[in-house]
Amino acid sequence: MSKEITSRNEDYAQWYNDLIIKGGLAENSAVRGCMVIKPYGFGLWENMRDQLDRMFKETGHVNAYFPLFIPKSFLSKEAAHVEGFAKECAVVTHYRLMNDPNGNGVVVDPESKLEEELIIRPTSETIIWNTYKDWIQSYRDLPLLINQWANVVRWEMRTRLFLRTAEFLWQEGHTAHASKDEAIEETRRMLDVYADFVENYMAVPVIKGVKTASERFAGAEDTYCIEAMMQDGKALQAGTSHFLGQNFAKAFDVKFLNTHNKQEYVWATSWGVSTRLIGALVMAHSDDEGLILPPRIAPLQVVIVPIFKGDEQKGFIDNTVRPVIQSLRELGISVKYDDSDNNRPGWKFAEYEKRGVPVRIAIGQRDIENNVVEIARRDTREKSSVSMEGLAFYVKTLLEEIQLHMYNKAKGYRDSVITEVNTWEEFETLLDTKGGFLSAHWDGTAETEEAIKEKTKATIRCIPLNNPQANGTCIFSGKPSTQRVLFARAY
Amino acid sequence: MSKEITSRNEDYAQWYNDLIIKGGLAENSAVRGCMVIKPYGFGLWENMRDQLDRMFKETGHVNAYFPLFIPKSFLSKEAAHVEGFAKECAVVTHYRLMNDPNGNGVVVDPESKLEEELIIRPTSETIIWNTYKDWIQSYRDLPLLINQWANVVRWEMRTRLFLRTAEFLWQEGHTAHASKDEAIEETRRMLDVYADFVENYMAVPVIKGVKTASERFAGAEDTYCIEAMMQDGKALQAGTSHFLGQNFAKAFDVKFLNTHNKQEYVWATSWGVSTRLIGALVMAHSDDEGLILPPRIAPLQVVIVPIFKGDEQKGFIDNTVRPVIQSLRELGISVKYDDSDNNRPGWKFAEYEKRGVPVRIAIGQRDIENNVVEIARRDTREKSSVSMEGLAFYVKTLLEEIQLHMYNKAKGYRDSVITEVNTWEEFETLLDTKGGFLSAHWDGTAETEEAIKEKTKATIRCIPLNNPQANGTCIFSGKPSTQRVLFARAY
Repeated sequence: MSKEITSRNEDYAQWYNDLIIKGGLAENSAVRGCMVIKPYGFGLWENMRDQLDRMFKETGHVNAYFPLFIPKSFLSKEAAHVEGFAKECAVVTHYRLMNDPNGNGVVVDPESKLEEELIIRPTSETIIWNTYKDWIQSYRDLPLLINQWANVVRWEMRTRLFLRTAEFLWQEGHTAHASKDEAIEETRRMLDVYADFVENYMAVPVIKGVKTASERFAGAEDTYCIEAMMQDGKALQAGTSHFLGQNFAKAFDVKFLNTHNKQEYVWATSWGVSTRLIGALVMAHSDDEGLILPPRIAPLQVVIVPIFKGDEQKGFIDNTVRPVIQSLRELGISVKYDDSDNNRPGWKFAEYEKRGVPVRIAIGQRDIENNVVEIARRDTREKSSVSMEGLAFYVKTLLEEIQLHMYNKAKGYRDSVITEVNTWEEFETLLDTKGGFLSAHWDGTAETEEAIKEKTKATIRCIPLNNPQANGTCIFSGKPSTQRVLFARAY
Repeated sequence: MSKEITSRNEDYAQWYNDLIIKGGLAENSAVRGCMVIKPYGFGLWENMRDQLDRMFKETGHVNAYFPLFIPKSFLSKEAAHVEGFAKECAVVTHYRLMNDPNGNGVVVDPESKLEEELIIRPTSETIIWNTYKDWIQSYRDLPLLINQWANVVRWEMRTRLFLRTAEFLWQEGHTAHASKDEAIEETRRMLDVYADFVENYMAVPVIKGVKTASERFAGAEDTYCIEAMMQDGKALQAGTSHFLGQNFAKAFDVKFLNTHNKQEYVWATSWGVSTRLIGALVMAHSDDEGLILPPRIAPLQVVIVPIFKGDEQKGFIDNTVRPVIQSLRELGISVKYDDSDNNRPGWKFAEYEKRGVPVRIAIGQRDIENNVVEIARRDTREKSSVSMEGLAFYVKTLLEEIQLHMYNKAKGYRDSVITEVNTWEEFETLLDTKGGFLSAHWDGTAETEEAIKEKTKATIRCIPLNNPQANGTCIFSGKPSTQRVLFARAY
């Protein structure tokens, strides 16, 4: 069955799309640029969301919900912000339909035009800071640590399932603080939470860093990010945490009475990750047979496939499997027993490989006689015959081993494509061959950054945190440089 | 502090609004008809959502996510459906903003007009059935049992926090079945799930019934509902479950190959509850001092307020309270120790009463000497001195008692306002005095139903399930009737 999936070497983009569709994660909808997240894909998102939500609450955050609509005038209050989002806004202009008197069916009622157009939130800084104005008077009201799980819309022209869609699901944290240091500390704390989640649950290694001015979030003083590496040598920004300074407090006039009894503008942060993470997960781990999902967030961890001829054998296997299922569930392991007779075992094997179920257990008449089962792990595709004694604990340990192995494999690859380059020739050649992160000297100017992007499509992914300072010369301009930064082509 | 809250007798509508605002649940936003659900209110919604989600999954449903946007043409495919929603649709017509060349700031870019307008989903039957068309080929693909948690928009002209807002949060189940009987069974099953949740978690008694033709969901063959009674004698529809017949399958041409190898249209249901439930919760239980929340879904179940003079006393109380908090949490009870010195105990007492925290524990120097604490339950406002020995278990039992007492109290009131009426005079008089559910004979015609609504604002809330059949004469038309139905004024 896996022939349905285009191989990575053949066409990486098509391979990715095949995995999303054949793996049952999502599909394109009838609405331009919007996807349908299918039950299996949404189950994956639920596991990611629930874990992140726990981490947010453990760090003192609470959830709230703000309006989907943003008055056009709000967006305009922060100059850089509107500049960044104006070109991709879904705009609501009317609030009623009617039957066309001229018989053209259902049309927009021209008399229902809104006085002020409403924008579907591309992100919620403006509506939230307009609200915070009423919530914050004194330092006693701070810090305000709020997160929102929501859908947002950015009218992208070229979309790809999960990676870039007009509507996507995400969380956006919006915090308010009494001091600059505290806000920066929060920005860094949430970057660490993201890195912890992506590395320890998604098994994807990331590099923490800061964006250059030209790659900053529209309205931020500083944008911190975690950058991941995909199997085709292209980077993917997996999460961002922004130090917003007092920009939005000033735009919406949010002041507080500080401990010295003086009025001061509030300090802000915002941070978010989205369903885009699923795209990163898929591209970081999967192979030509299908998805490979890390046990800690997989919607289904174990599938059991019986191999039988006739009802008698099946009944025999059912009785043997029942206690196995129970002991697995008692250990908190999600398991499915696929005893449907619509499809042959071989078909099921291929199907669950496509879906990336971490562990497959096959069991037939002879296995039972030998008191064993056949276990296949999805990540390495290794099969082994395992005794039924203590099977549940064996599987629990195996799932942990798979989680760790997936991370180490991804890290091994990621590390192997970080290259220090010192000449422009090397830079261009590597981009077209190996790809990956190119660690190179840069003169620190936006002009050079832009010129390199123009010539090679490579961007500065980040300036790594605690980046070693070392004098050198810019690979492009030859001008003096004080540090290396990470370049890559990216999603 | 409770003086801030208008009393029910004075102005019931204002009382309700005061509770929502002063109780910290929600507030109006800068966007017409849209609310901001504040952290405390969202915590309440999270508890309701999580419990409902468990119940949906226990009944075999999975979650998925469909687009926020619905092409205008989709809405038009089911005649009754578009008729029902056309007058309250938020319509997206453009996808870009620009700086006005004439210097009028940021305006909509006229060149970004969409070929086909997009409607913000008021409900998702159309986009979902358009998707199901590709998911369903044979009886083997059925049943399809999918739920979605989402935000929807209905452009209401007169809005009220939670009860009626332009944007609200809800869940919408959309299931597909191979037979009419199975679909009706599903419709009834989910009605039972809703009744179970509202009665056993929200402590609000409901009447299960069927809507009359004129009160049906736009596009349904039958709309089942649960009807609750508010303290002012007005009813509130707490949830609906629709048997959609083959209407949407025909509108979107969704057929399946049945077991007799024949093409057949699919049978459908849809069912939903929304943040409106919070409005019902508030109006069913609360008093003039503030909210009264049922322990099973309260964001905070217990608050502990220390009563001290000076740091020494406080330190002494802290040490006594610490193990109490721990033992409460070990029993799965959410507890907050409010030892802030910004406010006096009296202020805190009033504050947590407004917020409806089920149990308040006050503890001072002398209490500790007597090895007791003062416990105040929110529902009855009774205070008692309770020994510290086994305090956690005492509180656990008390929370269960409060949950039960709240339900019984609400049911006692609800039952006391169900009246059998046999004359039109009685009917009109009772509506203006006692209110409640009026059980009266109706001739079964939409004309009579409409005339009664016109004259009195009372509607037929439902025809109760298993309604006793008994001949009588319609209170309004005097024509023969075969059964009594429940009339009420409603939210």
